[in-house]
Amino acid sequence: MTYVGTDLPRIDADDKLRGATRYVGDLKPHGLLHARLVLAMEAHATIDRVLKDDALAVPGVVAVLTAEDLPTAFEGPMRQFEPLARGEIVFAGQPVAIVLAETEAAAEDGVEAVVVETTALPVVLDLEAAIEPGSPAARVRQVGGVMEGGAAMHVEAGSDGGDEAVPAAAGPVSANAVGPHQQGQGDVAAALAGCDAVVRGTFRTSWVSQIYMEPQGALAIPEVNGGVTIHSATQGAFYVRGMVSKLYGLEVDKVRVVAEPLGGAFGGKFNLIDPIVTGAALAVGRPVRLQLTRSEDFAAGMPASACVLELELGGTRAEGLVALRSRILLDQGAFGDWAVDGGVAVMIGGPYGWQAWESTSFGVVTNRFNTGAYRGPGGPQVVFALEQLVDELAQELGVDPLELRRQSAAAEGDTVFDGTPWPAVAAREVIERTQLHPLWAKRGSLPANEGIGVAAGVWMGARFPSAATCRVDQDGGITVVTGAVDMSGTNTSFAAIAADTFGVPLSQVRVSYADTATAPHSPPSGGSGVTYSVGQSIRLAAQDAKDQLLDFASGQMDVAVTDLEVVDGMVRPVGSPDRGLSVGHFAAQVTGFVAVAPPLEGRGRFAPGNPSPSVACHIAHVRVDPDTGEVTTLDYAVIQDVGKALNPALVRGQLQGGAVQSIGWALYEELQHDENGQLLSGSFMQYAVPRADLVPNVQIDFIEVPSAVGPFGAKGIAEAAVMAGTGAIANAVAAATGARVRELPMTAPRVWRALNAK
Amino acid sequence: MTYVGTDLPRIDADDKLRGATRYVGDLKPHGLLHARLVLAMEAHATIDRVLKDDALAVPGVVAVLTAEDLPTAFEGPMRQFEPLARGEIVFAGQPVAIVLAETEAAAEDGVEAVVVETTALPVVLDLEAAIEPGSPAARVRQVGGVMEGGAAMHVEAGSDGGDEAVPAAAGPVSANAVGPHQQGQGDVAAALAGCDAVVRGTFRTSWVSQIYMEPQGALAIPEVNGGVTIHSATQGAFYVRGMVSKLYGLEVDKVRVVAEPLGGAFGGKFNLIDPIVTGAALAVGRPVRLQLTRSEDFAAGMPASACVLELELGGTRAEGLVALRSRILLDQGAFGDWAVDGGVAVMIGGPYGWQAWESTSFGVVTNRFNTGAYRGPGGPQVVFALEQLVDELAQELGVDPLELRRQSAAAEGDTVFDGTPWPAVAAREVIERTQLHPLWAKRGSLPANEGIGVAAGVWMGARFPSAATCRVDQDGGITVVTGAVDMSGTNTSFAAIAADTFGVPLSQVRVSYADTATAPHSPPSGGSGVTYSVGQSIRLAAQDAKDQLLDFASGQMDVAVTDLEVVDGMVRPVGSPDRGLSVGHFAAQVTGFVAVAPPLEGRGRFAPGNPSPSVACHIAHVRVDPDTGEVTTLDYAVIQDVGKALNPALVRGQLQGGAVQSIGWALYEELQHDENGQLLSGSFMQYAVPRADLVPNVQIDFIEVPSAVGPFGAKGIAEAAVMAGTGAIANAVAAATGARVRELPMTAPRVWRALNAK
Repeated sequence: MTYVGTDLPRIDADDKLRGATRYVGDLKPHGLLHARLVLAMEAHATIDRVLKDDALAVPGVVAVLTAEDLPTAFEGPMRQFEPLARGEIVFAGQPVAIVLAETEAAAEDGVEAVVVETTALPVVLDLEAAIEPGSPAARVRQVGGVMEGGAAMHVEAGSDGGDEAVPAAAGPVSANAVGPHQQGQGDVAAALAGCDAVVRGTFRTSWVSQIYMEPQGALAIPEVNGGVTIHSATQGAFYVRGMVSKLYGLEVDKVRVVAEPLGGAFGGKFNLIDPIVTGAALAVGRPVRLQLTRSEDFAAGMPASACVLELELGGTRAEGLVALRSRILLDQGAFGDWAVDGGVAVMIGGPYGWQAWESTSFGVVTNRFNTGAYRGPGGPQVVFALEQLVDELAQELGVDPLELRRQSAAAEGDTVFDGTPWPAVAAREVIERTQLHPLWAKRGSLPANEGIGVAAGVWMGARFPSAATCRVDQDGGITVVTGAVDMSGTNTSFAAIAADTFGVPLSQVRVSYADTATAPHSPPSGGSGVTYSVGQSIRLAAQDAKDQLLDFASGQMDVAVTDLEVVDGMVRPVGSPDRGLSVGHFAAQVTGFVAVAPPLEGRGRFAPGNPSPSVACHIAHVRVDPDTGEVTTLDYAVIQDVGKALNPALVRGQLQGGAVQSIGWALYEELQHDENGQLLSGSFMQYAVPRADLVPNVQIDFIEVPSAVGPFGAKGIAEAAVMAGTGAIANAVAAATGARVRELPMTAPRVWRALNAK
Repeated sequence: MTYVGTDLPRIDADDKLRGATRYVGDLKPHGLLHARLVLAMEAHATIDRVLKDDALAVPGVVAVLTAEDLPTAFEGPMRQFEPLARGEIVFAGQPVAIVLAETEAAAEDGVEAVVVETTALPVVLDLEAAIEPGSPAARVRQVGGVMEGGAAMHVEAGSDGGDEAVPAAAGPVSANAVGPHQQGQGDVAAALAGCDAVVRGTFRTSWVSQIYMEPQGALAIPEVNGGVTIHSATQGAFYVRGMVSKLYGLEVDKVRVVAEPLGGAFGGKFNLIDPIVTGAALAVGRPVRLQLTRSEDFAAGMPASACVLELELGGTRAEGLVALRSRILLDQGAFGDWAVDGGVAVMIGGPYGWQAWESTSFGVVTNRFNTGAYRGPGGPQVVFALEQLVDELAQELGVDPLELRRQSAAAEGDTVFDGTPWPAVAAREVIERTQLHPLWAKRGSLPANEGIGVAAGVWMGARFPSAATCRVDQDGGITVVTGAVDMSGTNTSFAAIAADTFGVPLSQVRVSYADTATAPHSPPSGGSGVTYSVGQSIRLAAQDAKDQLLDFASGQMDVAVTDLEVVDGMVRPVGSPDRGLSVGHFAAQVTGFVAVAPPLEGRGRFAPGNPSPSVACHIAHVRVDPDTGEVTTLDYAVIQDVGKALNPALVRGQLQGGAVQSIGWALYEELQHDENGQLLSGSFMQYAVPRADLVPNVQIDFIEVPSAVGPFGAKGIAEAAVMAGTGAIANAVAAATGARVRELPMTAPRVWRALNAK
């Protein structure tokens, strides 16, 4: 293979580097109305009145719309079904009204002039208090219905599945509690009692923002047939189509979604503002574009949610990890979208085989945002708890922490916490490779206040169905059509797959993507599932088109199909490279005026039968300032099974980016609210992300244990890459100081308090 | 079948009737520049200088571009490769410059201010004189290269094919002559000598405009990658892509063509102004839209061209038509596009089997327009000559004119004038049905000055290769994707084909079409070839998707595939209609988050192996005013083999429209030039079309002799429908008056002169 497995620059790099890429914010259709949002000032209140007159008097302001003005036809407990607050404000920053104007400035002035009269309601923020019976409700107005589509992405099987032995949840809870979600197997109490050691702890994690470079943006253009075309910075064109058509009661084909280039997403761009601009455009009959400012994106976004995790685990020297008991509260914010409250009860098992477990989780409705899908949803949170206790258990048992993990690594046929069998998983291979890593070897000879820690994470990977087509043009060029969005360079991998499968130079492949009007059904780019499935569909489509070509060329060249090959854009008899004829030579004949044979149009369809989990270990080397508690990351390594690196350059980029975001989770990032639910860290002045000077060199050491499912053995790798850092850095801090920090992020004050508590 | 074969309203009717359809002229992208053309005042001249300054001084004018300003990369003898005159004006009305401005009015004012300084050259107009050695050249500047893509559409095999016996063309010709194109078989002189009767005559036909309701329009938007997106009122999205990419030296995938709804075309909308707006947009880097006015469309369009036909034919009472000799001059105007100068030498044989023929034709380059593809190109012209002489021969032989035609009808295996065998053709069936028509029976009992005439025409039909896809959406809706343009309701037939093939209600089918970025390769809508090929691809794509559905449903329902059927959107066991589950029930499962099976994505590819010619007879009943020569059409009938009427309502509409256009050819329409090459009939004040009060009731009597190739037996029917009227009305005039009119259109003065000559 010429391209698959080779470092390739992204096919969109040139445009992006030259500033030529046009994002949704660059689109200015005729008649465009600019939109700005009126965001709620309070965290919880009833909306008594919205005074629009002053705003409407601003020159250029065309309309001020509230929930009643949008032609919604469906209600559900997801934020995407309540684009503007309906009578009740449930978090500070929630969009209450949208102002449409001929200019951006007029829209801004209009927003300033809108007055929202409210009556305050109790603000619900504390997870444990919120689920106590008698707690005030975070939502007074309950919306029924089942959540759709969101969490399913992250959990392989129903999170409430499992066998008969699941223990009942203890005690009554308030209406703010969603769940309990319970998983279990075996007699945990007995298993723990039989362990050589048992450790336990309670851990807290923070809300964390996805911090994509391009804030959320979308443009909706009403169509004359009553439908709408949405140009969106979205991860899922068909996803948006499905959700928006449901919300506004339109047939799915009346909603056309064209995915525009993404300026980053990381799970956060899933139909957040598409419903708002669509409703506004339908209401006023003109194109409406909204692009959030960074502050609005902080205030009104859908970040990753905070957890409280109580965990107890036990093991034996002979068997390693044996039994686990957990109770997790996941702050799902004020809505049901994407919350992985059920998923964390499964993920808490990590990449290990256990004999007995009892895992309970609740979603907790609070007056904060809603949960978004941030890379490896739930992962950094569960790793932070589980992997610290695994280290503590190793210490109690007197065994090497990596050896304990190796000994306990999940193997095919072990049971996942949802009761399903583990598919093929390279947990042991990754841990063994980690044991050999030079950085890990350095831990015995460190200066004072330095430490090296390790942790493991696993992402099961989404199993989306997908289809794709592959057209051969008259010049021999290949057009791959997919409905999937290019994220993190997936189109470059798709082009490489098509080029190698068909046998043409990469420059002859074009990937046309993500227009729901014409593309084959394709999944969202998320859950580490898009290359895994769509890559395979594209391979099949290219092979199909190639088979058609060879069938035609065979007759034309009077050479058996089996004696023909396509190499570098030439169809040639095997062994006679100089007798080749170009792909275009044949393609031109079947796209001309007189039919010689049908055009070459390949089609691929794929349904991954099994997930191919990716396992990653992170090694962190830190120094802790004993006087301030400040943690400095000195060195870092990622060891991950990627199945097959389709484009090693992109794989390294993914793994490095994951490490950086993992460091952010561990040490810096936190969306903080005050006791009234006001966001304290709503700009980069307050919200810390790992700047370049805070990130060490990240060593990438991937291994390739091929998947039997993904294209050329590839596995989905994006999410696993971000999970282990919270645990590795916490364990490194413990190694450096002997102190355990049980709250994220591990800021200097928290570390200092832990040092002093010790 | 529920829909195929049933009268269905067009799926685009509602939008069109409500005025909701957006044509290219309604598109106003951000930054749009309006364009107007500077048209040549002379018919032939060198361009010495173009003075732009006054135009550029007009407020709002942004640019004045001439040929040198367009980034062309290719030259060829087609007008579409010379969007603006290069140094030499070759017809009055030729675009010389394009003025771009912020408003339409400014562009108009700019055009007025442009001065084109020229030096006159001899104007070449007369066909016979033009090909004499020593004639001045209609083009001083010759452009080499072969013509591509155009004429091939209308002629099945190479027009210069045929066997060894073809006689040499007589005498030398000037450089204005293209050809000779020669076809022949047997010893024509001997065959004629052995005939019972021989007739001959010379016939002249006029240039005729296509008269679509929407004048030509296109919009080009430059793309940041150096490419361009063209929104065009075009019949062929992939055709425009191919030609424009060649002209501007762009890779084909850099040119994206989106076909917008057509307000009529009839063959005339093939890349006439797309090259102009594309060049302008690329030159200035802004979107450019041009929509011709009606006067500009007359002056600068590409209508059907005039012919001079010398014809001699002979027959016997025993064998019918036996031998034919012809020499045809076809005015191809100043360019090579679409000229059927070779095709007419083949078509002149009509739907008959001949023993011997000798057929020569020339294209003649003159200082008039260029030839466009107007419905049945060459057909009305050859029918006018051939069918009059067939009638005269019948008279000489003393046989019934229809019986002579029946006796001579081409049958499968007879030889077409290009030397290929006739495919299955229902000439005899159509003529026999015509013999039974009540209108034909009336000819014996007419008042004075009335007459009934008949004529036959045949169109071989294009054989385009095509592909299409068929996607099943989660709601059970079907999206058919084709790159073919909806013309004359083809999308409605496509929807019916998909609905019946798959088994869903018509309302669940959507046809998404003609975007070259994503559509499967598809042919232009023309040559009566689009339903014939694309209809079959769509049937195959729908069947493919249905097979996928049944395969999945079979497993889900535990019923064998062979025991399942899809009826009215429900998958059900045969014989158990109440056990059905909706298509959406299954489709939703394979488009969800977790793969159960791949999405349903059907693909069809088709290459018609053989043409399926359609034969039509027209019967005209006329009255001729003996004092003025004015011809009134009193009654009219069309008898045509359509193979299978996929939508009888549309078939009737097609045949009626063909009859009306045929009446226009026969009696009214003529683009006249004066001796300087100035167009005299450049508006509806001078150019006569058959108004409603000039058109009688048109009786439609189609028969269905199924094609073995087209979908459900359908044949391409559009072109055959327009051919026979010239001959039928001429024969009716002769029947009414005994006088033969040998020039089109048969206006009152011409008929009066014929009456008086007799």
